[in-house]
Amino acid sequence: MLKPLGDRIVIELIEAEEKTSSGIVLPDSAKEKPQEGQVIAAGTGRVLENGQRIDLEVKEGDRIIFSKYSGTEVKYEGNEYLILRESDILAIIG
Amino acid sequence: MLKPLGDRIVIELIEAEEKTSSGIVLPDSAKEKPQEGQVIAAGTGRVLENGQRIDLEVKEGDRIIFSKYSGTEVKYEGNEYLILRESDILAIIG
Amino acid sequence: MLKPLGDRIVIELIEAEEKTSSGIVLPDSAKEKPQEGQVIAAGTGRVLENGQRIDLEVKEGDRIIFSKYSGTEVKYEGNEYLILRESDILAIIG
Amino acid sequence: MLKPLGDRIVIELIEAEEKTSSGIVLPDSAKEKPQEGQVIAAGTGRVLENGQRIDLEVKEGDRIIFSKYSGTEVKYEGNEYLILRESDILAIIG
Amino acid sequence: MLKPLGDRIVIELIEAEEKTSSGIVLPDSAKEKPQEGQVIAAGTGRVLENGQRIDLEVKEGDRIIFSKYSGTEVKYEGNEYLILRESDILAIIG
Amino acid sequence: MLKPLGDRIVIELIEAEEKTSSGIVLPDSAKEKPQEGQVIAAGTGRVLENGQRIDLEVKEGDRIIFSKYSGTEVKYEGNEYLILRESDILAIIG
Amino acid sequence: MLKPLGDRIVIELIEAEEKTSSGIVLPDSAKEKPQEGQVIAAGTGRVLENGQRIDLEVKEGDRIIFSKYSGTEVKYEGNEYLILRESDILAIIG
Repeated sequence: MLKPLGDRIVIELIEAEEKTSSGIVLPDSAKEKPQEGQVIAAGTGRVLENGQRIDLEVKEGDRIIFSKYSGTEVKYEGNEYLILRESDILAIIG
Repeated sequence: MLKPLGDRIVIELIEAEEKTSSGIVLPDSAKEKPQEGQVIAAGTGRVLENGQRIDLEVKEGDRIIFSKYSGTEVKYEGNEYLILRESDILAIIG
Repeated sequence: MLKPLGDRIVIELIEAEEKTSSGIVLPDSAKEKPQEGQVIAAGTGRVLENGQRIDLEVKEGDRIIFSKYSGTEVKYEGNEYLILRESDILAIIG
Repeated sequence: MLKPLGDRIVIELIEAEEKTSSGIVLPDSAKEKPQEGQVIAAGTGRVLENGQRIDLEVKEGDRIIFSKYSGTEVKYEGNEYLILRESDILAIIG
Repeated sequence: MLKPLGDRIVIELIEAEEKTSSGIVLPDSAKEKPQEGQVIAAGTGRVLENGQRIDLEVKEGDRIIFSKYSGTEVKYEGNEYLILRESDILAIIG
Repeated sequence: MLKPLGDRIVIELIEAEEKTSSGIVLPDSAKEKPQEGQVIAAGTGRVLENGQRIDLEVKEGDRIIFSKYSGTEVKYEGNEYLILRESDILAIIG
Repeated sequence: MLKPLGDRIVIELIEAEEKTSSGIVLPDSAKEKPQEGQVIAAGTGRVLENGQRIDLEVKEGDRIIFSKYSGTEVKYEGNEYLILRESDILAIIG
């Protein structure tokens, strides 16, 4: 299990649909870079300068939209994850 | 539904009028890049270093003017949105 | 009406005199870039890290001098405005 | 009258002596760029993050030395001024 | 013994497996740069602006994933270590 | 007299010895750039974000070592001074 | 004596061993740049924004490892020292 630190979040990418609306299967290069992910694990929150720890707004299981190219790719037990800071998350899909 | 985080805001662009004052329809390239949008969803606010959360000044439905080229374009359920930080918003049209 | 956010201010430019002291009308390119404006609307103020909101020092109607090239030009209902942050304002003409 | 904002200060330049010690009048290009000025007006002070406003250390009439090339030149009623931040002032000549 | 200061952490790298899933031993250049380490020693924590010292989230013995290329390599008594800041640590493997 | 502001300090340079240990007088270009100075005047101190003013650690008369190339050279009544911030001072020679 | 200011520390470099494990004396260029030093003097500590002074974690006599290329070299009474900030120190050798 990966336990992210502070305001970090582990996500799994959600691939974009591989078929266009007309049903044609797209080759890999024609698909858009995915910007959606599902939260696998969330850190303990950010510590403010007064010592208070602020809970993250996202939680395990949330589907999110994040800034392209942000975060760090890591491999763990054969799976690929992306570790982001909460500030890289734009919105929760709710 | 998109729920933006912190001081983020989801807007829909408001296209500039496609006719000039003399009634001529403008081709796309002659139109100005729109700087107006309508707020679709607003985040929960910015957290200060004392732990206090500051409500955003804009709310759902507000028409706003924002800094050109700011924000991140996202597609969600076939629609295009722009996700901004409140600091990218210049003024509310009221 | 434009309602600027936070420490932002909407101004209208005040054009420099178009005649030299000897009464000659200057062509556009020979005039200095104006640095004077009149405040049309002022934001609700800046929020400090202790949650306190600080009133702006300028108010509607003030004539001001501002840093050249600062701010963002916006068009609204056929008029041109400049939206500045209060920190771009150098002095009030009083 | 120019009323500078916050920690800003309006000064008038004090030109360096135009004669050398041997009494020769120097052409303009041989004179050093002046770094001295006299305070014409001082702002209301800087606001700290706790909401407290800190009085400026300089006051109207003070002669000061400032960092070369700092500040913004403004013309007002035919006179030339320089608007500085207090942090651009190196020392008071007392 | 190395005692890291503040929010610093001394780690030992954990080399990636040298065999592929099919059992072939990989030459050095074909192995991925390791991103895993084991915490050898952790600092006393970061001091906040209110004087409070915040304990680190990692402790001796933890296996961690860290940002590639972060930290400083040091040699001590013939062994190689990496000294990181806690903010370079992405997640604890737990 | 020069009264430096805030955390600023006025120093006079102390020239390095012009003779080598074997007694040879060095030409100017062979001498090291001096890094030593004597404090002529010290400012009133730095203001913290809680409004408290922190006294400087150096005082008039102290001999100091400072970072090469830091500070601003000023001429005043025929003498040359260097105005530094206290943070440019590395150590007091005591 | 050198008395460093604030969070600064005066160290003396500890040269790396000049013999390899097989007893061969290495020429200068083959030796690694030293990263070890001994603390000669430590400053009075860093002042926080609440006015509190935080004692340094290192003290006179400590052997330390520091970031390569950090600090400023100074000569004093014929000896060479390096003046660092505490944040340049990676670990104490204890």
